[in-house]
Amino acid sequence: MFEFNVIAQSSDSGARSGVIQTRHGTIETPVFMPVGTLGTVKSLSPEELVEAGAQIILGNTYHLYLRPGCDVIDRFDGLHRFIHWDRPILTDSGGFQVFSLAKLAKISREGVSFQSHIDGSRHLLTPEKAIEIQTCLGSDIIMCLDQCIQYPATKAQCREALETTTQWAQRCKQAWQETGNGSNTLFGIVQGGMFGDLRRRSADSLMDIDFKGYAVGGLSVGEPAQMMLEMADVTLPVLPEDKPRYIMGVGTPENLVELVARGADMFDCVLPTRNARNGQMFTQSGTINISNAQYRDDDGPIETGCRCYTCRNFSRAYLRHLYMARELLAYRLNTIHNVYFFIDFVKRMRRAIRSDGFESFRRDFYRRLDN
Amino acid sequence: MFEFNVIAQSSDSGARSGVIQTRHGTIETPVFMPVGTLGTVKSLSPEELVEAGAQIILGNTYHLYLRPGCDVIDRFDGLHRFIHWDRPILTDSGGFQVFSLAKLAKISREGVSFQSHIDGSRHLLTPEKAIEIQTCLGSDIIMCLDQCIQYPATKAQCREALETTTQWAQRCKQAWQETGNGSNTLFGIVQGGMFGDLRRRSADSLMDIDFKGYAVGGLSVGEPAQMMLEMADVTLPVLPEDKPRYIMGVGTPENLVELVARGADMFDCVLPTRNARNGQMFTQSGTINISNAQYRDDDGPIETGCRCYTCRNFSRAYLRHLYMARELLAYRLNTIHNVYFFIDFVKRMRRAIRSDGFESFRRDFYRRLDN
Repeated sequence: MFEFNVIAQSSDSGARSGVIQTRHGTIETPVFMPVGTLGTVKSLSPEELVEAGAQIILGNTYHLYLRPGCDVIDRFDGLHRFIHWDRPILTDSGGFQVFSLAKLAKISREGVSFQSHIDGSRHLLTPEKAIEIQTCLGSDIIMCLDQCIQYPATKAQCREALETTTQWAQRCKQAWQETGNGSNTLFGIVQGGMFGDLRRRSADSLMDIDFKGYAVGGLSVGEPAQMMLEMADVTLPVLPEDKPRYIMGVGTPENLVELVARGADMFDCVLPTRNARNGQMFTQSGTINISNAQYRDDDGPIETGCRCYTCRNFSRAYLRHLYMARELLAYRLNTIHNVYFFIDFVKRMRRAIRSDGFESFRRDFYRRLDN
Repeated sequence: MFEFNVIAQSSDSGARSGVIQTRHGTIETPVFMPVGTLGTVKSLSPEELVEAGAQIILGNTYHLYLRPGCDVIDRFDGLHRFIHWDRPILTDSGGFQVFSLAKLAKISREGVSFQSHIDGSRHLLTPEKAIEIQTCLGSDIIMCLDQCIQYPATKAQCREALETTTQWAQRCKQAWQETGNGSNTLFGIVQGGMFGDLRRRSADSLMDIDFKGYAVGGLSVGEPAQMMLEMADVTLPVLPEDKPRYIMGVGTPENLVELVARGADMFDCVLPTRNARNGQMFTQSGTINISNAQYRDDDGPIETGCRCYTCRNFSRAYLRHLYMARELLAYRLNTIHNVYFFIDFVKRMRRAIRSDGFESFRRDFYRRLDN
């Protein structure tokens, strides 16, 4: 079960807002999806995610396949009951982690073989296997296996990876159809490195295969922000208007504003969670580092007016104290604020689009940042 | 403001139940007090402590004095607002940490000088300073500075430490009276090592000084459980019946049952919190280690029938997965269960005493453990 409808279109940019229906409920777009790599958005409870306004979270196929393993999750009829989360879940295919985290990834005609980063055990991930694992996880939105490459890469490398990605997408679609599983939806992933013509070719090939949604992968891998936006500029306009467009692994609030302006609908990123654990907190006027001595006896919240649990109840001084003492509560309280900030930020963009005020939101955003 | 009333006395043991009134609310005894060393019960939010039934928590004078420092906490008018906790707080005097954690503790006539375990800075803790710091922390129950000794220790060492403790108690009482602070209460601490006559002498001296409550310190420092109970047996009966009796830093559920049977009213211990972070979970039939492979796909809760947040929502399999993956949520969910277990365990003792069924509770407790 999957449906997507655009319900508002900005009159002076590509920004749009829509609604996705899944078996586990509705997702309003644009949407920011917190990352729950191992079946937990690091340090947060499911209730805290709901309170922060999370509509959907991510899980990682690579990680969950290795640990705890599909047989365990299958005993719970999927990830939802296992992790106590009843809203939608999107899982990536494992492609990104196999090429970035695993050891000795080797591509063959069949798929990609790799060694676990945990115990060195050897595994083979094929397009069919990626679908099988994600089906077992019970995700609402599942992703095709793609070949991710490093930045920078030559055009020849990008072309080869793109072709593999296209072939795998075809096999994923086939395998997905054979599961006969109407409870989830499969998205294709556009690759092509930092080459506009390859990006367009990748998008065209995927559209020929026909997916319910399209992701743009291989961005935010070390390239300059301007190059990332150029790739979005060539890719997003060729993707079908009536399908959701998901930019994977991006990014900063600035990135989100610019990508929404170009018609992107879905985002995931570890930035709010990972940076929270390093003491970096997001505010409308930029980031602050909570370890800074200036907050030692500061009795104000991280951000005045913020309605998150952390800002409503705790001061910068207390958060700094917890962080300096490496207290476990520090990571949680910081994460609650950052996740709330990202979700609220995208929610405010959504509202702005629906009242056709996106461009003024965008101007206002940069004005605050400059202050 | 402080009042204590015994409201029930077991007919076939020394167990009793009472009510303590403080400025921040009521505490029903026997009570288990979770330890919030640095102004946080490790990994838990204040709301989670309330949900677990915590009536009062501990703070550590030594730790909070060094970090974040009294000047910071003073800006918040004390610990309560700083840490977002509105129920009673008890702080120890710092004596235990100075002798166990700090470096180069040196006793002089004035007090004890030591080096911070964090940055090596030198400090002098006197009885007067201990009262001053705890007054600044705004604790509801504050403790006299005492001299803690290692186990085993010679009788001469114990006698000397006990005499220092008595002199310091006298000075603490004096300093406390001079603060004119009617919002908190000062407890004395009985020392005397593992020598019954010294324990009795210490108790007598403190009763001469006259405190609103009496703690027994220097137990659970490595001695056999039987020796600990012997010391409780000689000490508890000589303490006044109309004052609360607090056994510091103890202990296991077995310890708690036996000490309640001997008339103890208050307990604190890091056991539930520290062991949770090591994967050891308490149940009525004993402890289990969540990392055990047998729980890999176990879809039951830690303890069937347990009403804690963790047991109501998560399986042993998920908790094991989080723990094996060293996920931050593991430490929290484990801690929630263990803290709930200890608080609930003491609450059930309290109820049993009030219906004069303590001895049957005690028998039932051992029967379950043996199963």
